[in-house]
Amino acid sequence: MNTSNQPRPLISLVGAGPGDPELITVKGLARLREADVILHDALISPALLREARRDARIIDVGKRHGQQRIRQGEIHALLIRHAQAGRFVVRLKGGDPFVFGRGGEEAEALEAAGIPYEVIPGVSSAVAAPASAGIPLTHRTCAASFAVVTGHRKQGNGTISQDWEALSRIDTLVILMGMHNLARITAALIAAGRAADTPAAVIQWGTTPQQVVVTGKLQDIAARAGHLSPPATIVIGDVVRQVEAARQSPRLTDYEPYLNAGRTVLQR
Amino acid sequence: MNTSNQPRPLISLVGAGPGDPELITVKGLARLREADVILHDALISPALLREARRDARIIDVGKRHGQQRIRQGEIHALLIRHAQAGRFVVRLKGGDPFVFGRGGEEAEALEAAGIPYEVIPGVSSAVAAPASAGIPLTHRTCAASFAVVTGHRKQGNGTISQDWEALSRIDTLVILMGMHNLARITAALIAAGRAADTPAAVIQWGTTPQQVVVTGKLQDIAARAGHLSPPATIVIGDVVRQVEAARQSPRLTDYEPYLNAGRTVLQR
Repeated sequence: MNTSNQPRPLISLVGAGPGDPELITVKGLARLREADVILHDALISPALLREARRDARIIDVGKRHGQQRIRQGEIHALLIRHAQAGRFVVRLKGGDPFVFGRGGEEAEALEAAGIPYEVIPGVSSAVAAPASAGIPLTHRTCAASFAVVTGHRKQGNGTISQDWEALSRIDTLVILMGMHNLARITAALIAAGRAADTPAAVIQWGTTPQQVVVTGKLQDIAARAGHLSPPATIVIGDVVRQVEAARQSPRLTDYEPYLNAGRTVLQR
Repeated sequence: MNTSNQPRPLISLVGAGPGDPELITVKGLARLREADVILHDALISPALLREARRDARIIDVGKRHGQQRIRQGEIHALLIRHAQAGRFVVRLKGGDPFVFGRGGEEAEALEAAGIPYEVIPGVSSAVAAPASAGIPLTHRTCAASFAVVTGHRKQGNGTISQDWEALSRIDTLVILMGMHNLARITAALIAAGRAADTPAAVIQWGTTPQQVVVTGKLQDIAARAGHLSPPATIVIGDVVRQVEAARQSPRLTDYEPYLNAGRTVLQR
């Protein structure tokens, strides 16, 4: 295939995965290693950034809670400017680019600018953090649906603008960015009719060696897990019962040395 | 760290990702290359199986719709037997192991048998197939929640046992394994109050070169996409509007030759 007429530049919106750097996709890692410029979120593993070319330009455009460091419009401008200069740009985003990461807005900006781009999906912490704690989001006996919501959207009156009544009826509920509002969210779900004794868990730093899991019930998880700071994933539903069994099993990390013998793909 | 006392065997439940073999995780691929025995689902890319060791035993335990080839209990028995014989077993599952794949049941069976295992998450087609069609599941302007359901559970009277009224109120709805019941599902959502002109899409063979995308409205997507056979991912919600803009952008695959120059990680 003759590729000489392929337009350049190209931007790749890459999902970095949930925390463990080896949970990036094979394709995402290939793009990262090829990039001229990398614009990355906060909370991206340093092990991933070490995979960049030595001469790659690495720009931290991460925004932290309540402290906007670079505005979204500036990220768009940076993407477009580097691409128009003929550089291959990787936009490295935590989790999946299209799950609560404003990747949709970035894609729109690139379309409006006429810049060809691709999206390389990533493993979302919505799925992987529970899995790492032994919690399947679905289970034939107790969960045939799951919903994923953000818990940080506020209305003027301080309530979170989600349809908690509808969400209370989904088998498994996963809440991202919800730690600051956890007490309000659990109260809203109970008020909407979800049983107060529904199992619940919070997974902080899921899939990383720093992972912490706190379990409880819908009525007490906010009190039990209130000391955990972001990043954390909240799971509510009968599937959380699985975690107790899983905990009796040895920890994954106990086996890493054996499994990875001589084969660790990324430098730690 | 002294690993000589690490128990063997170990089983790895690995998510193969949504179709494109390069969307497996780096860690999942490392396990696959190390396995003594691989038990895999149907629809796993041959390119992934070619990554196995030459002497690995590869067993297809895939079950196709309406044609159970190996019962779930037999899969559990195979996993346990090979692990007890001291073999490192990879259970390679489409998408993510814990999103509608009975991975939760397999984990329970291994716990009951006292066999240590790990779960390596994968990119779910629920997220990746829409992304590959240019559809973000969330968007700041129109979607702060998404739900993922299976469309193949039936009650005695032929209706699908989901709370369609609650699901009709979630911003973005993704339905897996729903093609056989698509007309019933869309009718149930409209009856529950979801607007009949809500944008909808079906993505068949998402993320692969055979990908087909059909768009429409909730009221006509079943008729428009009825000719598509599984595997297919159904998306309903305002985020589907994004796909039209994305289609005006060049196709990803147009750029693959340039991007992958000399760097394709997996043999095709």
